[in-house]
Amino acid sequence: MTMLCSADEGMWLFSNPPRKLLKERYNFEPTQEWLNHLQQSAVRFNSGGSGSFVSSKGLVMTNHHVGADTLAKLSSAEHDYLTDGFYARRHDEELPALDLELNVLESTEDVTDRVLAVVKPGMSGSESEKARRAVMNTIEKESLDKTDLRSDVVTLFQGGQYQLYRYKKYTDVRLVFAPDKEIAFFGGDPDNFEYPRWCLDVCFFRAYENGKPAEIKNYLPWSKQGAEENELVFVAGNPGKTDRLNTVAHLEFLRDRVFPSTLNTLRRREVLLSNFGDKSLENARRAEDELFGIQNSRKARAGGLAGLQNPAIMEAKIIAEKNFRDQIANDPKLKESSDVWQEIENAVHAWERMYVNHGLLERGAAFNSTLFSIARDLVRLADESEKPNAERLREYNESGLESLKQELFSEAPIYDDLETVKLSDSLAMYLEWVGARSQQEQANHPASDRAQADTSGWKLLNQVLDGKSPQERGADLISRTKLRDVAERKRLFEGGRAAIEASADPMIKLARLVDPRSRELRKSFEAEVEEPLRQGYAKISTAKFALDGASQYPDATFTLRLAFGTVNGYQQQGRPIPPWTEIGGLYTHAKAHGDVYPFKVPKLWVERKDQLDLETPFNFVCTADIIGGNSGSPVVNRKGEVVGLIFDGNIQSLVLDFAYNEEQARAVSVHSAGIIESLKKVYQADGLVKELAGEENR
Amino acid sequence: MTMLCSADEGMWLFSNPPRKLLKERYNFEPTQEWLNHLQQSAVRFNSGGSGSFVSSKGLVMTNHHVGADTLAKLSSAEHDYLTDGFYARRHDEELPALDLELNVLESTEDVTDRVLAVVKPGMSGSESEKARRAVMNTIEKESLDKTDLRSDVVTLFQGGQYQLYRYKKYTDVRLVFAPDKEIAFFGGDPDNFEYPRWCLDVCFFRAYENGKPAEIKNYLPWSKQGAEENELVFVAGNPGKTDRLNTVAHLEFLRDRVFPSTLNTLRRREVLLSNFGDKSLENARRAEDELFGIQNSRKARAGGLAGLQNPAIMEAKIIAEKNFRDQIANDPKLKESSDVWQEIENAVHAWERMYVNHGLLERGAAFNSTLFSIARDLVRLADESEKPNAERLREYNESGLESLKQELFSEAPIYDDLETVKLSDSLAMYLEWVGARSQQEQANHPASDRAQADTSGWKLLNQVLDGKSPQERGADLISRTKLRDVAERKRLFEGGRAAIEASADPMIKLARLVDPRSRELRKSFEAEVEEPLRQGYAKISTAKFALDGASQYPDATFTLRLAFGTVNGYQQQGRPIPPWTEIGGLYTHAKAHGDVYPFKVPKLWVERKDQLDLETPFNFVCTADIIGGNSGSPVVNRKGEVVGLIFDGNIQSLVLDFAYNEEQARAVSVHSAGIIESLKKVYQADGLVKELAGEENR
Repeated sequence: MTMLCSADEGMWLFSNPPRKLLKERYNFEPTQEWLNHLQQSAVRFNSGGSGSFVSSKGLVMTNHHVGADTLAKLSSAEHDYLTDGFYARRHDEELPALDLELNVLESTEDVTDRVLAVVKPGMSGSESEKARRAVMNTIEKESLDKTDLRSDVVTLFQGGQYQLYRYKKYTDVRLVFAPDKEIAFFGGDPDNFEYPRWCLDVCFFRAYENGKPAEIKNYLPWSKQGAEENELVFVAGNPGKTDRLNTVAHLEFLRDRVFPSTLNTLRRREVLLSNFGDKSLENARRAEDELFGIQNSRKARAGGLAGLQNPAIMEAKIIAEKNFRDQIANDPKLKESSDVWQEIENAVHAWERMYVNHGLLERGAAFNSTLFSIARDLVRLADESEKPNAERLREYNESGLESLKQELFSEAPIYDDLETVKLSDSLAMYLEWVGARSQQEQANHPASDRAQADTSGWKLLNQVLDGKSPQERGADLISRTKLRDVAERKRLFEGGRAAIEASADPMIKLARLVDPRSRELRKSFEAEVEEPLRQGYAKISTAKFALDGASQYPDATFTLRLAFGTVNGYQQQGRPIPPWTEIGGLYTHAKAHGDVYPFKVPKLWVERKDQLDLETPFNFVCTADIIGGNSGSPVVNRKGEVVGLIFDGNIQSLVLDFAYNEEQARAVSVHSAGIIESLKKVYQADGLVKELAGEENR
Repeated sequence: MTMLCSADEGMWLFSNPPRKLLKERYNFEPTQEWLNHLQQSAVRFNSGGSGSFVSSKGLVMTNHHVGADTLAKLSSAEHDYLTDGFYARRHDEELPALDLELNVLESTEDVTDRVLAVVKPGMSGSESEKARRAVMNTIEKESLDKTDLRSDVVTLFQGGQYQLYRYKKYTDVRLVFAPDKEIAFFGGDPDNFEYPRWCLDVCFFRAYENGKPAEIKNYLPWSKQGAEENELVFVAGNPGKTDRLNTVAHLEFLRDRVFPSTLNTLRRREVLLSNFGDKSLENARRAEDELFGIQNSRKARAGGLAGLQNPAIMEAKIIAEKNFRDQIANDPKLKESSDVWQEIENAVHAWERMYVNHGLLERGAAFNSTLFSIARDLVRLADESEKPNAERLREYNESGLESLKQELFSEAPIYDDLETVKLSDSLAMYLEWVGARSQQEQANHPASDRAQADTSGWKLLNQVLDGKSPQERGADLISRTKLRDVAERKRLFEGGRAAIEASADPMIKLARLVDPRSRELRKSFEAEVEEPLRQGYAKISTAKFALDGASQYPDATFTLRLAFGTVNGYQQQGRPIPPWTEIGGLYTHAKAHGDVYPFKVPKLWVERKDQLDLETPFNFVCTADIIGGNSGSPVVNRKGEVVGLIFDGNIQSLVLDFAYNEEQARAVSVHSAGIIESLKKVYQADGLVKELAGEENR
């Protein structure tokens, strides 16, 4: 339970860095200037990932697998940039991404008091949720009007703190360089989350403003040397989600319900997309990026679940919680927080009761289709736009509208065959989970998950399926909807409620059909689960600050954090694992696997092997505390120079979701020297290399 | 509901063939001699599949995918017969299978009266199960003693009839020919259950007796011509399992519970074995045969579930059931059977209640390991051998002992790495399904499947895991057990109870630990589910015979059946699908898929393309009523000559589990002409070709 830090633990706020720890362990005292510079050099990829500015001309470095979403959207049957790679020798060859938004965190402001003040004692869950939403929407809107910056109220410590984050946005982003996928993702799914590794998981974009490369003041210079053993390094990035503050009851729910259920769905989708992709090379290309994401999540979740199922980890949580509760019970000022564990457990039980239906309808597991998501956004926008900003659902709030529109009106390709397969299968899953289809069947067969289906569940299901089998209905919806046409989406968006109500588009009609029940479930979830959890964790978090002092870091929330650690190998099954690999190891590892996919050395790398310095460091590990979302984060030294690029964690790091451990858990990075050597010798990307070296001659 | 036949429907008993239908539709009247000859030429592969004698010297034809189990067991890192194929030019080159048993059905005898007589009115489910088991064991033992033939009492019409089947056994079976897997399974999983196809899914074994090729009187001669369009053909094989007699309530349970749950487990294992295989070529080889089986089941089950989820199919079942129930209600002699639907529904509800635990423990889903299965057999044999034969569990009855021993003492390789991965993951699934691990957790979290966990469930789980995580425990069990050593298995078998009780082998101890609870669940399942279902379907079946007459066929039970139909194409999405493909199409289809795996034309086929007559028929479809288990069945013409070899059904055939339909559902076969052309021109297997032609010159 305790989050008192020892070791290289922590995903720290830039506004509350681990000054004491850094001083004591490493005799390092970051200046405010050093912190500000790193913060503003860091970039968030809103598609999910991190990055950094690495030149004064807007050059952004991230992972190939973070850029993959954009690479896939830019690809077609003719040009497969995701697989084959890309390099623009001149600015005018750079390819505009279709819907990518980059964010740079300009400033943060604590708004905890203002947010917490609106929740009055005696309010119901529903009332406090509404009040809290209103104040958060209002703060964001005020900030947007005042600064014109993207403004997000971020929930920290699972409800213990609220901060207003203001971001500078870049929406004209262009592709500069991507290697071929074979080297970016060498070892494929089998080597994912493993170490040692030999991956050039790197990709460069360029941010543009007013049609020209953005002039960037805060960017990271390149280290001549690169990372060395035992060197202190820092990681600035956006870890996605951790659950370290969670109570034991909450963790048990994740272990027994959320993770197993999520894994079932992930495996289902993995098999579905693998089968789809196996049918032809073009099918494989269409499904590739999504399939990678699913496999990556499946492996990460399986590792997380294994952690929760490990009695050693859970026992430690139980003991820590007991100690913490004893401390609270014995502290007259904190005693009134004693009930909070029961309150959280009640909220978890409420979640359990609505888990299936909320997942199917509001989270959309029953409608696994891009076109359905578009339809839902259009339908909800028509309703929400008519309400005062403070009353809107968070994601349709005015401050986020521009970002939402960029996504909604993206020209990214949507493939009917893939959409049909996905939607049909998720409708079949809906049918499986809700179960019986007639009232009589419902009454006759109380089965597990199905038992949760409310009595109106089967009615809605029947209406959704419209008398057809899931396969027929899926094919029917995808073939008849017009939403793949961006102009039609714009027409419906601009036409507002009248246009939506008049639309005969079957996908719009489906989204409208589902919406009342879906909103009802959302409301219950917010009132009975989210709100009580926020209030509960606020109390726990307050007690922790009171007992353990101010030096704490919040659970990850896909917002900017500072991690630190040293470049260090580890022991595994009695064998030492080295801190870094060398380029030459790529050839050895490939050979050991028969040189077949996904362990195949790409053609260019075979041809140019002789020119490479095979002893150049390629990938390395460090003890920094990172997790999914940190992909693409820069690794810098004390001088703030780039020494590496985070792209993965090892298999032992997958339990970091719940607890930090520096014995074996490691962050895995591409080494800065390996990047330069590859760019020079294999890709002959001289312009890019010069730009990274600060010789901007383009 | 009604099984009155029209069209080419039916998996008929050889003892009650569809004489009237064949006469009326095709003016064909099979003689008793014709029937006997075909019956005794047909071979059952006990590993799961069908086959036939095709020469007087014991040559047996089946599918490559039926032989795959044997091919995999004979393979090693050095010789991969499953992938690369095999051909013995001389008898002394033929490779003895490690544990294959072939059965030929010699005779059948109706024992319904004797079996039904032991169940007296007023007996509890448990009492009647015991009485029924005793009489079945006794009949088998008497028959074995009298005839020395394998003797099985077979349950037909789901309990409506009982027949004693006597089989001649062949246990010395040797591999003669297998093509490379690329052509046997051309198109792989994507083309599995699809048509048109271009697969040489064939494999030849030879049955030996006393160390010499068996002298066979009943074998099938080869047709010179092969199958022609609209020709009447027959299939003799062992369809595995259908559910056509099932009541609607029973089908709903399959739709809402059994199929979704089975599919989740299959997908889980598919992902697990795919991941394992992706790590290296040797891993892939080790997992290959099992992975194919899983993918095949997953696709078949998904097709079956899609059928059950199709309202058209379910509505037809509901209407037929209603009509049948009305007929019964109006018939004074049958009226007392009116309650049977409720009785079956009650049994289904009982099944629902024990579904999770029975599946985990007694069906062994929690212990997905060959070594565990061996341990369980040894533990149970020690107990069962001490009981009188009539009281033993069916599978440890004396009549089956020799077959069981062949399996138990097989020298087939068992791979520790694969076993560890499988066992660890199934233990993790056990933990997920039973859920919480401490009594307090159990009380706190009533979750779906977990809610079914009986109160002792968590205790047993804790004992099974022994304080370790599933991964640790799986690795621990596999690394410490000695059961991979056949001599140790024999020692424990021969030592009986004393040896088992003295054994410190961790897998034996695990099997013993689980056994009491597992047997308890089995007992409940037999008493509350199996027995009532048997009794219920016996009544339904009796009523059907009374109303519809004697011409009926029972649901499939992996016993010998006769199907018939014509060689006929069909319409799909408005396009005509031809009755057969030609060898030349292989090259075209491969090219359309980029000539990459699994659509790659194998090297030999590329090299020898010029010598092939590309217009030779390769695969063909017919309307015969077949299902999984029929793989490897011979297709013969009126003269009883081989015209083809069943290897698959098309995607539309996957609903045949529940109802026959001849509009689109088709059985898919390799054409006899395609087999000969390939053997001659590609494999230059002249000896084999001559033997098939009846020129036995070996």
